[in-house]
Order: sequence, then C-alpha cells, then structure tokens
Amino acid sequence: TSATFRSIYEKGSSTPSPYDGTDSFPRRHLGPTPKNVEEMLKDLKESDLDSFIAKVVPDNVLIRRSLKVQPLKGFTESEMLADLARIAEKNDLVKPLIGKGFYGTIIPPVILRNLLENPGWYTSYTPYQPEVSQGRLESLLNFQTVISDLTGLPVANASLLDESSAAAEAMILSFTSLKSKKPKYFVDSNIHEQTLAVLKSRAHTLNIEVVVADLTTDEGFATLQENKDQLCGAMVQYPATDGSIKTFKAYSRIAELVHSVKGLYAVASDLMALTLLHAPSKFGADIVFGSSQRFGVPLGYGGPHAAFFSVVESLQRKIPGRIVGVSKDRLGNNALRLALQTREQHIKRERATSNICTAQALLANIAANYVVYHGIEGLRNISKRIHGFTTLLANSINESSNYRVLNEKWFDTLSVDVGSADEFIAKALSKNFNVFKVNSSTIQLSLDETVTKDELTTLISLFTGLSEVQLPETLPSFYEEWTRQDDILTNEVLRTHRSETSMLRYLYNLQKKDISLADSMISLGSCTMKLNATVEMMPISWPKFANIHPFAPKDQVKGYTELIVELEKDLADITGFHSTTLQPNSGAQGEYTGLSVIAKYFESKGEAHRNIVLIPVSAHGTNPASAAMAGLKVVPIKCLKDGSLDLQDLETKASKHAKNLAAMMVTYPSTYGLFEPGIIDAINIIHNHGGQVYLDGANMNAQVGLTSPGDLGADVCHLNLHKTFAIPHGGGGPGVGPICVKEHLTPFLPSHPIISTTNQTEQSINPVVAAPFGSASILPISYAYIKMMGGSNLQYSSIIAILNANYMVAKLKNHYEILFTGGDDKYCGHEFIIDLRPFKKFGIEAIDVAKRLQDYGFHAPTMSFPIPGTLMVEPTESEYKEELDRFIDSMISIREEIRKVENGETDGAILHNSPHNLKDIISTSDAEWSQRGYTREEAAYPLPFLKEQKTWPTVSRVDDTYGDMNLLCTCPSVEEVAASQ
Amino acid sequence: TSATFRSIYEKGSSTPSPYDGTDSFPRRHLGPTPKNVEEMLKDLKESDLDSFIAKVVPDNVLIRRSLKVQPLKGFTESEMLADLARIAEKNDLVKPLIGKGFYGTIIPPVILRNLLENPGWYTSYTPYQPEVSQGRLESLLNFQTVISDLTGLPVANASLLDESSAAAEAMILSFTSLKSKKPKYFVDSNIHEQTLAVLKSRAHTLNIEVVVADLTTDEGFATLQENKDQLCGAMVQYPATDGSIKTFKAYSRIAELVHSVKGLYAVASDLMALTLLHAPSKFGADIVFGSSQRFGVPLGYGGPHAAFFSVVESLQRKIPGRIVGVSKDRLGNNALRLALQTREQHIKRERATSNICTAQALLANIAANYVVYHGIEGLRNISKRIHGFTTLLANSINESSNYRVLNEKWFDTLSVDVGSADEFIAKALSKNFNVFKVNSSTIQLSLDETVTKDELTTLISLFTGLSEVQLPETLPSFYEEWTRQDDILTNEVLRTHRSETSMLRYLYNLQKKDISLADSMISLGSCTMKLNATVEMMPISWPKFANIHPFAPKDQVKGYTELIVELEKDLADITGFHSTTLQPNSGAQGEYTGLSVIAKYFESKGEAHRNIVLIPVSAHGTNPASAAMAGLKVVPIKCLKDGSLDLQDLETKASKHAKNLAAMMVTYPSTYGLFEPGIIDAINIIHNHGGQVYLDGANMNAQVGLTSPGDLGADVCHLNLHKTFAIPHGGGGPGVGPICVKEHLTPFLPSHPIISTTNQTEQSINPVVAAPFGSASILPISYAYIKMMGGSNLQYSSIIAILNANYMVAKLKNHYEILFTGGDDKYCGHEFIIDLRPFKKFGIEAIDVAKRLQDYGFHAPTMSFPIPGTLMVEPTESEYKEELDRFIDSMISIREEIRKVENGETDGAILHNSPHNLKDIISTSDAEWSQRGYTREEAAYPLPFLKEQKTWPTVSRVDDTYGDMNLLCTCPSVEEVAASQ
Ligand SMILES: Cc1ncc(COP(=O)(O)O)c(C=O)c1O
Ligand SMILES: Cc1ncc(COP(=O)(O)O)c(C=O)c1O
Ligand SMILES: O=C([O-])O
Repeated sequence: TSATFRSIYEKGSSTPSPYDGTDSFPRRHLGPTPKNVEEMLKDLKESDLDSFIAKVVPDNVLIRRSLKVQPLKGFTESEMLADLARIAEKNDLVKPLIGKGFYGTIIPPVILRNLLENPGWYTSYTPYQPEVSQGRLESLLNFQTVISDLTGLPVANASLLDESSAAAEAMILSFTSLKSKKPKYFVDSNIHEQTLAVLKSRAHTLNIEVVVADLTTDEGFATLQENKDQLCGAMVQYPATDGSIKTFKAYSRIAELVHSVKGLYAVASDLMALTLLHAPSKFGADIVFGSSQRFGVPLGYGGPHAAFFSVVESLQRKIPGRIVGVSKDRLGNNALRLALQTREQHIKRERATSNICTAQALLANIAANYVVYHGIEGLRNISKRIHGFTTLLANSINESSNYRVLNEKWFDTLSVDVGSADEFIAKALSKNFNVFKVNSSTIQLSLDETVTKDELTTLISLFTGLSEVQLPETLPSFYEEWTRQDDILTNEVLRTHRSETSMLRYLYNLQKKDISLADSMISLGSCTMKLNATVEMMPISWPKFANIHPFAPKDQVKGYTELIVELEKDLADITGFHSTTLQPNSGAQGEYTGLSVIAKYFESKGEAHRNIVLIPVSAHGTNPASAAMAGLKVVPIKCLKDGSLDLQDLETKASKHAKNLAAMMVTYPSTYGLFEPGIIDAINIIHNHGGQVYLDGANMNAQVGLTSPGDLGADVCHLNLHKTFAIPHGGGGPGVGPICVKEHLTPFLPSHPIISTTNQTEQSINPVVAAPFGSASILPISYAYIKMMGGSNLQYSSIIAILNANYMVAKLKNHYEILFTGGDDKYCGHEFIIDLRPFKKFGIEAIDVAKRLQDYGFHAPTMSFPIPGTLMVEPTESEYKEELDRFIDSMISIREEIRKVENGETDGAILHNSPHNLKDIISTSDAEWSQRGYTREEAAYPLPFLKEQKTWPTVSRVDDTYGDMNLLCTCPSVEEVAASQ
Repeated sequence: TSATFRSIYEKGSSTPSPYDGTDSFPRRHLGPTPKNVEEMLKDLKESDLDSFIAKVVPDNVLIRRSLKVQPLKGFTESEMLADLARIAEKNDLVKPLIGKGFYGTIIPPVILRNLLENPGWYTSYTPYQPEVSQGRLESLLNFQTVISDLTGLPVANASLLDESSAAAEAMILSFTSLKSKKPKYFVDSNIHEQTLAVLKSRAHTLNIEVVVADLTTDEGFATLQENKDQLCGAMVQYPATDGSIKTFKAYSRIAELVHSVKGLYAVASDLMALTLLHAPSKFGADIVFGSSQRFGVPLGYGGPHAAFFSVVESLQRKIPGRIVGVSKDRLGNNALRLALQTREQHIKRERATSNICTAQALLANIAANYVVYHGIEGLRNISKRIHGFTTLLANSINESSNYRVLNEKWFDTLSVDVGSADEFIAKALSKNFNVFKVNSSTIQLSLDETVTKDELTTLISLFTGLSEVQLPETLPSFYEEWTRQDDILTNEVLRTHRSETSMLRYLYNLQKKDISLADSMISLGSCTMKLNATVEMMPISWPKFANIHPFAPKDQVKGYTELIVELEKDLADITGFHSTTLQPNSGAQGEYTGLSVIAKYFESKGEAHRNIVLIPVSAHGTNPASAAMAGLKVVPIKCLKDGSLDLQDLETKASKHAKNLAAMMVTYPSTYGLFEPGIIDAINIIHNHGGQVYLDGANMNAQVGLTSPGDLGADVCHLNLHKTFAIPHGGGGPGVGPICVKEHLTPFLPSHPIISTTNQTEQSINPVVAAPFGSASILPISYAYIKMMGGSNLQYSSIIAILNANYMVAKLKNHYEILFTGGDDKYCGHEFIIDLRPFKKFGIEAIDVAKRLQDYGFHAPTMSFPIPGTLMVEPTESEYKEELDRFIDSMISIREEIRKVENGETDGAILHNSPHNLKDIISTSDAEWSQRGYTREEAAYPLPFLKEQKTWPTVSRVDDTYGDMNLLCTCPSVEEVAASQ
C-alpha cells in the first residue's frame, strides 16, 4: 500500500498514468506527503502502511473490499467542477412561487462572499471554547435577539434543524411539560403539510395523539374545548399555509383555552411577515418557531436552513437547542458563551426531551447578518413591497379575472380557485413560474423579495389575460389592524452597518476573533475536523443548486436527482448496505430516524412490543436521547477497563431483554477511539436475541475502505457527512446525517408528503424534516469529496487518519498517559484519549490544559468526552506533519509546565490563568504581572513558532461550571437517560 | 440635492419607485446615511448638499451636466449580476490553443477563493507601510525568488505591467545604460508580434531604432555584427514565438557580440518552459522577462497578468519597477520592505528611465502562490506533460498526416504547414479549438496545463484524420541537451505547502498580517481607496470572462465587445470626451499613451517639433516621467502659496515655448486636493499657444457628475479605474489607465497588430501593451460600478467624497494646520493635507505620526506627497461617519501626544517607537518598558475602541531613509526630471 499511496502523489491516482490531469485531489486532501509517511512509519517502527493497518484493525474486521465508487481514480479538481456544472445544468431555474416555508431571497453579496464562501466562517467548530469563538457567538446572539424581537418572546435559541422538526420540538416540549400525561396535541389544519407529517412521525414514537382541526373556526375551536382535559397543547400557523391571516380573537381564544389547562400554545410563523404583523406573543403564544431561510439563505432544494424557536420566560430552561448567553471572563469583562446551565436543568429532567446536537449555526449567522445589513427599515422596505405586490395581484385577480382569491387577508400568499389547477400550472410554467397545486381546482403562490415589477405584471396578465397592466403609483399598504406598533430591532449593532464597507468590516472583525481550520488544527475527537476543500464548496453557491425550491416538480430537478441517487448509492457501497436516505439533517436526527425505521420494521412484523435498546455507557449522549425520542427504553451496557465492550454484560442484558429487545446502538470504532475487538461477537449476540444492530457512524472516518457497518453485520447506521464526508462544521452546523440500511429495512425509510423520496413505499415512516432530501444544497460537498478521492483512494483518508493519530500517540506517550493503548503494538484508531486525571492532585484539570492550548494557538481537543478529565484528539488525515508536530510540541511544553507544578517549582498560575488574551497582557498592571511568577512572554509565546503565527483568544477564561465541563454537546448521557426512565 | 440624495436610501434610486428592487447599490456604496449627511452638513454649517457643493466647486467649473449613463437609476445588484451573466453568455468558451504569450492554466481553487476572491488580499494598498504589509511583501518576495531561480538571474522585481511593456523596459534600459548614445536595438524576428509592436511604439517616442532580423541565423547574426557600433542591445525570444528552440550557440554568440560592445542582451522567456529548459543566464542573458500568466492567472481576454523582469547583478540599481527587499526593524528583527534605495539611484540618473508606478502585485501573488502550492515537482509534472503531449502531437503530424511541423524543437508550441490555414482553423473550431493563423498556409498551436488526454487524441485525429489514436504508455521525455540540471525552487516555503489545508493556512497567515479595506479606512490621498463591492468583483472569476484568449476571433467575444464599447462610451460621457481607449494598464501608462497620441497628432499636422510639456511642480512623479518616456521635454510651472497654479508663470513659459509647445499636463482637482480656480484660464493659455491640454484624471473622483475634463476644455485625460472606478488596488496593482480624448485625437488612439481596437485607424499609434484591450478581465468591475450607480447617482460619489473630506477638515482644523483651506468657507476638494512640519522643531516628523497611526489600527495616509512633511488624507465616499470619527479621534489623540512633547512633558518616545508590534509589547523586558515613560497600554490601546478591534503591525518600525519618505511611489519628481534634462 505504501507504493500505491505514493502513486497518489506522483500521478494523482492509484493507477498512475502520465495522461491524467495534474490537478488530482487526494494528494491535496491528505496532509502528509509520501516522505512524511515514511518518516512517521519509521517512528512507529512499521515497514509499510499495509502491515501497520493490519495491526490496527482486527483481522476479522479488516476487509478492504474494494469500493465501487466511480471513477476509481477520482475526478481531478477541474473534471469535478465540469461534472458538477453538467449536473447543475440539468436543474431548471424556474421562478419559485411555491412558498410553503421556502421563499426566494437575495443573499447580500457581501455576506455571500465573506461569510458563506469564507473558510474563516464555515470551517469553525461549535463555539464550545468561547475564548476563541466570540465572533460567531456574537453573531448567534444577534440571531437570538432578532428572533426574540420579531416573535415578541424573551428567550430564543441559536437555531434548530428546520421548521418542521422545530414544530416537533414544540409539540414534545408541550407534551413533556405536562409530564407526558396529556396525550392530545391539537394542530390547526391550516399548517404546512410537511410540518404535519413530521409532527405525526415524532408523535407516533412518543405515543402523542395529534388531532388536526380547523382551530380558528368555531367548529374547530369547539373540538378543542371538548378535548381540553387531555390536551397538552395546540399549534397554529400564522400566517397560515394557505396564506390567510384570521381574526385576532381566533388566535387569542386558543391561547386562553390552552392556558386554562396549563398547556402550551405554539405558533408557526414567518419572520418576514413578522416585520409588519403583530408578534404572536400578543395573542398569547408560548412558543413561536419557523424558518429563517428567507432572511438571505438560498433555497438550495430544501436546506440547510436555520429554524428559529423562541419561548416565554417560564420555558427558558426547557427550550431545546443551543443558547448563547452573556457572561464574564476571568478579568471581569463581558464574554459570550453557550449557556449550558439551562441545558443542565434540562438534562436533569426525568427524560431527555430533545436530542438536538448539531444545529444550523452557519445559516443562522447568514440570517442574523441579513438583518444586521438591512435593519428594520430595510426589512420593512422588503416586506411592504412583498405585501404590496401580493395585494395588487390579489386585487387584479378578484377584479379582472374569472378566478377568485380564497383567502381574505394575506401577507405574501394567495390561494386561488383557478378551475383547473393543472392547466393553470402549465400556463404559469410557460412563463417560467412554479406555483403550488393545492387540489384539482386550487393553486397557491407566494411572492418574495426577488419578484420584479415585470414579473408582477406578467403574473397579473397570467391571471387576468390583460395584455396591458396598469400599476398604481404607490403600493397598497398593510392592514392597519394587523400592523405591529412596537419598536423592534433597535439594538446598536442592528442600526449601524448599512454600507457594504461597514458590513464587510463587521464580518471580518467577527471572523478574526475565532479559530477556524484556516488558522490551525482543530483536533476535536469524535468531530473529524478535516479539510473542507474549495472545489467541494464552490458549487453550493451556483444558482442552479442554490435557487431551486424543494417542491419543484421532479422533471425540473434532474440534476439534483442524479446527484442524490448517485450519492445514496456511493454511501451504501461505502457502508456495505443496501440503501440510503439523505433526509436527516444531523447525526442525532439520523439516529432518531434509524431507530424509528427499526421500530416500524418490528411493527410490520407484529413485534411492536420490542422497545429495549442496549447502549454502551461510553456512547455519545445523542444515542440515548434519540432512543428516548423514538420511544425506546435504554439499557446501558458496561465497558471493560481496556475500553472495550463488556460482552458478558451484553449477553446478560440481551438475553434478559430478549423478548422486548429492539436494538443495540454502538459506535465503531468506539467512542474511545478503539477498533472494538468484540464488535462482531456483539452483533451476533444481538441478532441471536432478535434485535437489530444500529451502528453510530460518527467514527466512520476510520472505516472507509477498510471495513464497513454492513460488512460487520449491522443493520443500519447513520453517517455524519459533516465529519467523514467533508461538509464543514459551519461553527455548529449545518450537518447531514443520512442513514444506510440493509435491504429488509429499506421499505421503511422516510417518505415525504409532497415530493416522493427515493425509497418511498406504503410502509415508509413519516418524514423527519420538511424537505424531502433534507439539506440538499450541501450534498454536492460530500459528492465531490467522494468522487474526487475515487473508489481506490478513499481508503487512504482512513489509513492516514489512523497513521496521524498513532504518530501523535507515539510522540506523546512518553509524556502523557494515553488511554487504552497500553503495550507496544497496541494502536489507537483515528483518535486517542489523553488522560489528565493524574494531574488533578496537583490542582491541574483538563480544562487548564485545554485553555492553555489556546495560548499555543490551538483549539482544544474534545474535553471530558467520553471520559471526564481527559482530552480526546482526532487529527484527521488532512493535517500535515508540520502541524502535528507543532501540536505535539505544544502538548509537551504544557507537560513541562505541569511538571513544574508537580515539582513544586510553581503553583501552576500560568495554566490556571490561561488563556491569556491581549487585554490581560497589555492592560493588566505591571504590579500584578510581577506577582504571577511568569512573564508575559512565557504566557504568550511559550514556543518560538508563536511569534510568527498565532490566533489570539479575545477574552480570558470564561467561568464555566464543572457541569458544563462534562458535556460534549447538549445531550444527556446514557446513564442519565437510563436512570430517569 | 439633499432630498434627491435621501431618496437613494429610501427607494434605491434618485427617482424613487416602490416597484424598484430593494437591493439597490448606491446606498451600499456610499458610507454616510442621510442622517449622517445631515449631521455633517450641520457641522459644516451648511444647509444642504447643493449649496455646499456650490461653494466647493468654482462657478465656472460646476456644470452638473446630467450624465447619460444608462440606466439612470442604476441597476440593482441582482439586475447587475443578471445583466453581466447575459453579457458573459455572449462570449464563447473555445479551447484557447492560440498561445502567443497567453495560455490556459488552472488557478488552484484554494488560491482562487482565498486570494483572488478575498478582499483581505485584493483591497490592500501598495506595501509602502511595511509594518502592516508583511504578508504581501513576503508573497512578492516569493515571486522574486521564483523568477530569479527560473531565469537564473540574481535580481528580479515584483512585477511589471505585461510582457510587451516589459520588453520595452528592457529595450529602454539597454538604451539608457549606454547613455542613449547607441540608437540601434536589435530584435529577433521570431518574437511575438504584439511585443514587436509595443517596442516600436516605445522606440518611436525615444528615437530608438528598432532593427528586426533573424538573429539566430548566420545572416541575421551578420547584420548584428555589421551594426555593432551603433548597438545598445539585442532581444530574442526563447522559446521563440513559433515555438522553436534554437541551438545553444545561436543564443550564446549573440550574448558575446552584444557584450563586446557593452550592450545588454535581453531574453523574452516562458516560466513554464524554464522549469525544464536551461536558464537564459546560461547563454549570457543580462535581462530575462516575460509573463507569469500561465502560473495560475486566468487568461481574462488579455489581462491583467504580471510580467516578470530579472537582471544581472550589475543592473540591480537600474531595474524598473518595485523590488521587495529584506531589512530589519527597530527591534532588530527581519522585516521586508520595498527596497526604494535602488529606485533612488534610478531617479538620480539624468533622465527618468521608467514611469512604472502601479504594477501587477495581485497577479504576481497568484503566480507566486501557484509555485508555493506546486513546488518544483508539481511544476515539472505539469511542464513535462505539456511537452510530452506536444511531442506526441508533433510526431503524429509528421508521421501520420500530410502536414509538417515547421519548428524542429519545441516546448509547447508547434507551427504547422496545413496548406490552407483558414480551412484548418474552421476544422479546428468545429472541434472547439482555437489555433493561431500565422499566414495563409501556416497555423500554430500551443498546448497547456488544461489539455486533457481526450483533447490530445482529438487534436491528433484532427491533423491525421485517424479515427483511432494509439497513445504510448509513457510520454516522450524532454530534450536531454536542453534539460536544466541546477537545483531550483529549493527555498523552504516552496517545499512546504503541498496540502490544501497547509496552503489555506499559509494564505490566511499572510493575509492576517496586512491592513486592507476589510480592516479599516485607508485614507491615502491621491489613491481613492473606495469600496470594491462584491457584486463588482464576482464576475471576474466567471469562466466566460476568465477563460477567453485575447486573440480569440471577434465573433466569439461579443460579450466582451459589448462591455468594452459600452464602458468606453460611458467613460467618454463622464469625462466629456469623444472616445476612449481601455488599453493602458495603469495611470502612468495612460499618461504615456496620451502624450504619444498628442505627439502623433502634431506629427500628422507636420508639427513634430512640438516637444515641450509644461507640468506644475505639484504634479505627481509619473507625469514628468511619462513625458520623458514620450520623448518630451519637461518645463516646470510654479504654484502659488495658496496651492493654486501660478498662471503668470504658466503664461510666461507657454509664450516662451509657444513654438515648440506640445502640451500642459495638469491634475484636477490639483494634487493639493483643490479645485484649481484658474483651471479654465490655464487651459485657454495653452490652447492660445497651440498646445494640447492633458488632464491627469487621478483625482476624477471629485469631478464625476459635477464637471469633467471635457467640459473644462481639456483635450485628453487618463483615468485610474483603480481609483475612481472601483477596481481594487490589489496590494499594488492591477490597474487600468484608459485615456479619453476629444474627437481630433481619436484617430491616433492605440491600435493592435492582431485584434483591431475600437478606434483603430491607419494613423493609430502602436499599442502600449500586449493585449488589444489591456486588462480586460477587470473591466466588469468598473462597468458594474458605473451601471449600478447609474447616471443620476454617480455624482453622489463625488459629492459625498467631498463632504467626507470637508467634515474631517472641520473636525481636525482646530488641532492641525490643514493646508490651503484657510478662511471659514474655504473648502478642500475630496482630499486634504495635514501639515506636520510645525512639529519638526520638537523632533516629531510626519513619519512618526504615520507610524503612530498604525497603533490606532489605521494605515497611514499618503506621506510627504505632494509636500514633504505632510499627510494627505482622502476618505472617499465609501467611508461611513463612525469610521471617519475613529480616524479623527485618533488624529486628535496623537495631537495630544505631540502636545506633551511641545510642553516638555515627554520626549515623544511613544511616537518615535511606533508602531508597537506584539513582539515589542510582549518580549521587550519589563526593565526596558519601565524606562520608556509610557505604558504598554498607552502604546497599544490609546483609545478604547482599539480593545474591540485592532489590526496589529507585525514588525516594528522599519528603518527608512528620508529619501524614501519623500516618495509616493517609485517615480521621480518634476524638478528632478526637469533638472536632469
Ligand atoms: C459518536 C457520535 N454520535 C452522534 C453524534 C451526533 O451527531 P450530530 O451532532 O450531527 O447530531 C456525534 C456528534 O459529535 C457523535 O460524536
Ligand atoms: C496624480 C496621479 N497621477 C498618476 C498616477 C499614476 O497612476 P498609476 O499608479 O496607475 O500608474 C497617480 C497614482 O497614484 C496619481 O496619484
Ligand atoms: O457536536 C458534537 O460533537 O457533540
């Protein structure tokens, strides 16, 4: 393999030909050069990559089935761009007036280029290390502020995965707030169909009964009254899916009723409409949610888009998702951070009530900056124009056509009885408009920011048949009784940046505060922060990927369909499975989906009672949380001292629960970074007891081309395309969490009510998100990654990732205890755990090392997951030897700093005071500095390379509680969920 | 006007309509909001913009002719992108095998996105302030290193404007090195036609006699020998324009002969070829030059591309253009800077020998980073494949076709006798290839990095008619006797960055060191550092603008033609002239062109003796230098105490030289930033004495829509599109310096030998650069700027620029003496001069203030131009009030620091030690700090806003000589040139 590997470099493919293009990708994606690889192997005392890998991956696991991914050699970068351009050309740019939660929008070019297309923004991680994340924390705080202002509710989170899953979170919050004892959840029938479908999916697994009724009518309201004893909450959409706005009373009396039984009232809304309309808080909403997509985020065939979610104050500790809060740093200065305190309360509840981990940070940041740039005046210019255009169109239809607008009031959407919907749709398409078919006689259409005067007159002609359209001088104004009067979006930052120069500098100033992959290695264990290559990223802003509505007819999206089907096939090949769904928007959502599919499978076999899921204690917090969301009962499985699964415990629990055994969920390589030796035995045990095996594919980056979940014998896995398959982390999202399944599970993969999914059948589970193919617009990233690496070279990502990790272990193991790699030939997988607990007795904690690493210009590795008091390091294959060495040198240097504490030479202040930001260096008095026992230079430049390149923390250490320290993301641990059940 | 101005904001145009799109541009381009404008007017005690402007611009000058630029309201941003996409669609993407100095290339995507498309790189200024420019200085030093290695000559500059004008610089250097006494310059006939045409143009004005001969043949060599007494130098192209490589002897004997008469031997070469071929130094070249375009810089219909230029050591003080050199900072650390010392020598020569100011920094940086990313192995992979493909094609033609390759050896280019060139060209086009027509029976074609295996076989089929092409397993190898053996490109930085992650971080690390417009205001007087808007920048990387060969047939470039003709028209409208040429690549080149056109005009009238040009002493250094290059004699004109032209002196000199008066060159508003009251009188004086008036349009940003060179009565002007018309400065280039002329000068605008220019006639002067339309690929920037502002709104750029400047004067004039604005209602134009000479007696110099401004996060304004000991500030219209105020506060704060010196409270160390970089703050000992008389905090955070946002200098003060201080760019002053004549 070393020779094959070398050939990647020499000719750009594993089958070298001097005729190949010279811009081959694998040698650019992989950090170490062949020479580096030789050096590293030598350090490991290994002769070649083959024999090295054979020692890492257990014999019965290592398969190295050649992947079928075409082209085997991989496309060159220019071939890839040409091929993606060919695919994009197969999508038609039809003006998307379909609406239904997805609207045309203009992303201001300054935001497009300097945020969405800027690796300084898109490659950063979730802001768990606040000292090097103040930029995006500020931007997310802006997002929260905007949401809170527009919805009128005081507490907003920093995004959820999409509007429909946010609806599910609202429903579940209502259900669990009443201790899951009131099973009925009322949903107004005038809500987006896809939202209702997702509600049904999520309600099903939790045994919530969704009741659909016309809540804004007297009849519907009467049903609500009749059921009030069983009611945990109600949901309306405002403006409704048909575009209508009802009477204030129609909305407010629902609130009164729901509140009278302590239920929660949730309102799905639209941010653009809310710039004009009364805030839902005004008529008593407890929860307001929706999509922030139309604030500058491209349609992208359905996503990713940031959902928003705001609540009344009493729910502030129950709100799902991440929340940014204002806090103080060590020097007493304001500092932002993820306010995990709230979530802690949340975790301590009897059950996990949400499994949200990765969310939509990058998209929330686009939306927030759209508002920063427009301000309230700018937004109202836009929303008034949208409403004015819509009203002119409605008036023309009502006054000058044979048709009739069905909704009495509107913001941007008109439902129109056109006699024959199909005929009208064809006529509209001939003018390049897509409208939505409601039923055989009704269409609806939504206007947006992008509609021009010419398009308006064309639309008027289309409905009225008039060839000359007269438009009035001024636009009709908004309904007076519905016009909100409160002062909103008055924060300084929302009033300042009106010129492009000012906006540009604001974006740069934020970006400069944060560590991203453009600065230095981010070696977060379990997170796989690899290269997000430029070629992979370029296509997502092409109009023919960006400006496509998710409900566009299939014959207009042949490009997307080709890409999706091919990617599903490639992922199935890589995972050794039969089929794939790309719908889930995150790993955790993939987990939920996979477990739901398993549950549905058992249901179809008449084994609906199977509700036990075995999960090792080492599992990531989303595993038990997702199980809870899927209505399953978690039984924990122990791990042995050496980090491996306790197979005996597994056998015991599996046989004890055999009758009700639904599944085992297990991560491979394990969350300890180990190639579990007993994985195949474990899988057999589960199968022998009638269970299904769910493999958490977060660590897939160690498997590709070496083994696979399917080859191991599992039944289903999820993948984090934002880990293994090169989608950037975006500062906390987006993500894509596809699941791949064996053939017997294929019929149960999620469907969609409007656009059928690839494997949709009668037996399919309901969708988990609003868009049929989830976050479609970022799929070209993974597609390009896979296609440029090629079937023959993909394995090198895993091989080099494993080599990099073990090289680091070899260099660090004389300085630190590396867990589970005892013995000379015991290797870790693609990540490893540094044990810092031994230093606790000297007063040095994991957090001190993590923070001190910032002084060395590095983002901390994963802290205290999966084991408290440790750091887990995952270098990935994209890091090059020089950077690994800088990190190694930094860790060794820190070890020497600790040694001085051990030796009693110092009190460790340099560690405890870390990180040292510039304010500390510059503004702290000489007097205080002279007391510290170390110099400014030792604080700031502990190694020489830092004088040449260093990204500075912008605040000093933010005061975190130990509780926060123990969390990887916002998800409860296995034991906590198990204990609470 | 204030009301009209406000309407820009309210509805996005000066004729507000609620139907207009909401993404209007003027309100994004202009910094101050209407509210700000009101505040600023109030500070100036003015009631509205109209009456304010009427006080600034003299009555007889202020015309406010409405501009005809369509659309009057301006396109919205999305309309603009759609319109440019429409235009781009009219260009055909035909595979460009035309060669002739322009080749297909692949810009590595990581460089495309993070350098060419990154405002952190493209908006920075020429690195005259080295402390905040170390990033691009390092990159330019890399460029020089690469050029020096590849050409084999020790000294290289940091780019010239293009290959053909570099040839002219080589010729002029040869001529002036022998004190302009040997008039004959020999040029091998096998050189690019456009290079020869430019040589002729430049030779003409300097009375150099260009002799064309087949220097590599015995006959040609004999001619050279015969003329050796009159010879100042000779030039060959290697490989030659027909693709051939001659014998070593053929090249080296020219060197011997030329050297025997102390002439210089210049070689035009190709960097890609030089990765394989012997360096020209090996056969005695004194100068090697060419284009670095094919190192990753898009074809862009001809430019901008960076020329390279290297020389033997003895010429190091004579080399034209900017040179980066390694120096030391105040703390003794290495620091890079522009090595102006060399240029000083250059200036002190009897005549200016070059007028190069703006060059091609951004493009040189792309080329340098292309090499950083590929390294020598990568480059040789590329060049060997190019040569191998070419050889396979040549062999097929010679062995299997009826045609014959005419050149015996080749790198990438074959000349082929095909019987009928036209027929073959049509055949090639049917397969989507453009080849070059040499004559009726001969074509030639050049292969490049982008040619694929499929294209190679198609080409072979095209020539041979074979339907099945067999290719050998390995590619033919390069000529052994021509293969260079020396170790090149071995510098560490050229060996390190092979992975995309590593390259990304290198680019970011460099960028972070520099101040660009993405950081803070760069208020450089005379440089107009305004917004370079994203929408303006986006189209230049679209393939249908980027990948077009400048010699593509006109019927394939209808898009470019439309854009060029329309831009020429709009610029003529704005300047009040009849026609425009876009050919010149910089302002200085525009000056040369304009003067040449004037000279040619007089020649055509039989008045060739007119050779006197009057230039005020306040003129920018390029003015006299260009005059010298155009063979004209400079006579200086005095200025009065109040900064205005001494009209009496002008009248005296004009009448004294009436017989030989060719022209006056004058900048308007003057380089002092004043609307010269006597401008119209001055123009009349010149006309009365038979001269032409050349208006230097560098300050056009104060004129647009208010007056114009044409309205003033001038005959010709140049524009700096990189100042007034939004092309970014790119860290020192590119630029575009069009000239606009009255009708009588139109027939003399430059031609092109291969592709005819818009106004080409029999009387046209020869071209000034290689490409018919100069730097065509960046013209969409200015086009978009003009079209988005619209005819009605363009004036607001000038109005707000003037308002911003005068607002700053109002705030600063109680603290500093502002030159030439005495009296309450005396306003400056769009820039103003702060006099720092009064502080000299306290030991504070202009440079101390300039450097101290870096501690406040600002780039210094223009220093000591046009008056030594001053700073000239030009805020432009794009700066917003908050930023102006930060700058004002910083200047006032510095004034207080100076006051402490005046009062004897301090010795001014805080100023003298500035700027304070982090190494100084952190690594300088406490002991030394305690001696300084000021604290670290006072040094680094003199104002509170700096704690939130500050771009740090990365080195401390670089030791500059006073001589450097007096220079704006690299150009000699009027007096110096005049004195030397
Ligand atoms: C092992 C494991 N499983 C699941 C997840 C959840 O994935 P996501 O954040 O995409 O929801 C993670 C995320 O880090 C993980 O590490
Ligand atoms: C007044 C004036 N004239 C001419 C020039 C030369 O322009 P360029 O640098 O484009 O050659 C400049 C450049 O700063 C200038 O300020
Ligand atoms: O995002 C997490 O890796 O938990």
